Amino acid sequence: MREQPLILDGNAVAAAIKEKLAARIGALAERGVVPRLATILVGDDPSSATYVKMKGNACRRLGIDSVRVDLPEATTTEELVDVIRRLNDDPAVHGILLQHPVPHGIDERAAFEAIAIEKDVDGVTTLGFARNAFGFADFPSCTPAAIVSILDYYNLPIEGKHAVVIGRSPILGKPVSVMLLNRNATVTICHSKTERLPDVVGAGDIVVAAVGKPKFVQGDWIKPGAVVLDAGYNPGNVGDVDFDACLSNASAITPVPAGVGPVTIATLLKHTVDAAEKRANENRTKIEPHYKII
Amino acid sequence: MREQPLILDGNAVAAAIKEKLAARIGALAERGVVPRLATILVGDDPSSATYVKMKGNACRRLGIDSVRVDLPEATTTEELVDVIRRLNDDPAVHGILLQHPVPHGIDERAAFEAIAIEKDVDGVTTLGFARNAFGFADFPSCTPAAIVSILDYYNLPIEGKHAVVIGRSPILGKPVSVMLLNRNATVTICHSKTERLPDVVGAGDIVVAAVGKPKFVQGDWIKPGAVVLDAGYNPGNVGDVDFDACLSNASAITPVPAGVGPVTIATLLKHTVDAAEKRANENRTKIEPHYKII
Repeated sequence: MREQPLILDGNAVAAAIKEKLAARIGALAERGVVPRLATILVGDDPSSATYVKMKGNACRRLGIDSVRVDLPEATTTEELVDVIRRLNDDPAVHGILLQHPVPHGIDERAAFEAIAIEKDVDGVTTLGFARNAFGFADFPSCTPAAIVSILDYYNLPIEGKHAVVIGRSPILGKPVSVMLLNRNATVTICHSKTERLPDVVGAGDIVVAAVGKPKFVQGDWIKPGAVVLDAGYNPGNVGDVDFDACLSNASAITPVPAGVGPVTIATLLKHTVDAAEKRANENRTKIEPHYKII
Repeated sequence: MREQPLILDGNAVAAAIKEKLAARIGALAERGVVPRLATILVGDDPSSATYVKMKGNACRRLGIDSVRVDLPEATTTEELVDVIRRLNDDPAVHGILLQHPVPHGIDERAAFEAIAIEKDVDGVTTLGFARNAFGFADFPSCTPAAIVSILDYYNLPIEGKHAVVIGRSPILGKPVSVMLLNRNATVTICHSKTERLPDVVGAGDIVVAAVGKPKFVQGDWIKPGAVVLDAGYNPGNVGDVDFDACLSNASAITPVPAGVGPVTIATLLKHTVDAAEKRANENRTKIEPHYKII
């Protein structure tokens, strides 16, 4: 008889990440530094408002300052870029998160590009993406990094496995593909124009759903024994994977909620602490030189 | 009986690209502008020297200035970066090509990164890669762009096809993967850690060999009717594909030499002309404003 599939517990992975952060935040506090994340919400999409609130709460529980900038739906690209530039210039802000998606009237790419690379804790700039693709990003995109963290936490091998990623967005499908590739998976990237999608997904030892359509991935697409990671989060707390149907074939699977989501938030917190430490160390270098005047 | 496979003639594709360039170079000449490509060769690898010479000759035949900088094997990263910065600052230079690979003592990535984005006609910077990945690069990497040009020249469809790319280098495997993805292919990226490689390659409607191993891709790996593009160029004018063996399954295939190589060079020339035009138009904007003082 087949073993029960492993339910990959995002809350457990997130707790492990946050536990390591607590000591680092304490050490920064002794140096008078409190990591600070600025989150920008444009418009009043209720889901986006919820995400931003969750991120803010997660910051505060861990001792990270959270500054929230709320802008009206009618904000122009120039106004948004101006807000971002001011946050870039603010030395107390270590990370900047622009909640995706922004209203249609705004050039989202231009806004993302305005974020200074050293504060791009969500990994949304083109330069951040390329550094990620080449394996030397400071802050890989949070959801892709969360997916890799879940696999690592459960010791699920990546190298040599065939990973199938469904979706090719700049902040999810593309970066998770390159991250799995850099971890030596063979990677196939699928999308709306992919022909015979069920067959292509059926080749995957690891399947990542990042398509933004509720219960899109069907149970009979999944190769028996595959690991399924659901990066979707659709209205009604529904993922991109038909969880119940996929359970019968998967060897391991993330639920929604309590799967990829909490690990994404923990990764964002980690990147904010990384950025604060980096900045604090740069300041220390300036104040306490390693030479001595004799 | 099966139709004869189509031999994809790189010289014909290159000639078509160059023919379009001639008129543009003439128009620039009337404005007093000669496109100029600076090529940097570090060390004395004979293949690299041959490539640089071929590129220089191709420039001159078309009326593009070619400036060659030869540096000794013992050049440091700092010295190379300094040379690149001076070329960045030289307004007469429109494109900079650093011949790959550089000697082992040099940090190749640091050198590539020193190239100003507006002169990165070979598409080697991380920013250039990311702009390519997101579909808005001015100068996508030349060999990947050449592969797409060959497919387009012969009206071989990309959208919906399963493309298998063998190799994941920053200047070839990764950028060609994202370019085919952006043209709506389903893309699988393979490499040295890929398991059951022949089966994975056998799923490809389009197979791109970018692995740097002579005659690596075997005939019986190729799905009948697949299109095979060989981006390899190994000592002795041998590609990454066992051409004769693959002929029996492929519906279309590039030879080596006279396949991807000449189109890569033509693409480099095109990017240099693009860069010169862009700069000339910027200058014109500065000199001849579109307003009139009344």
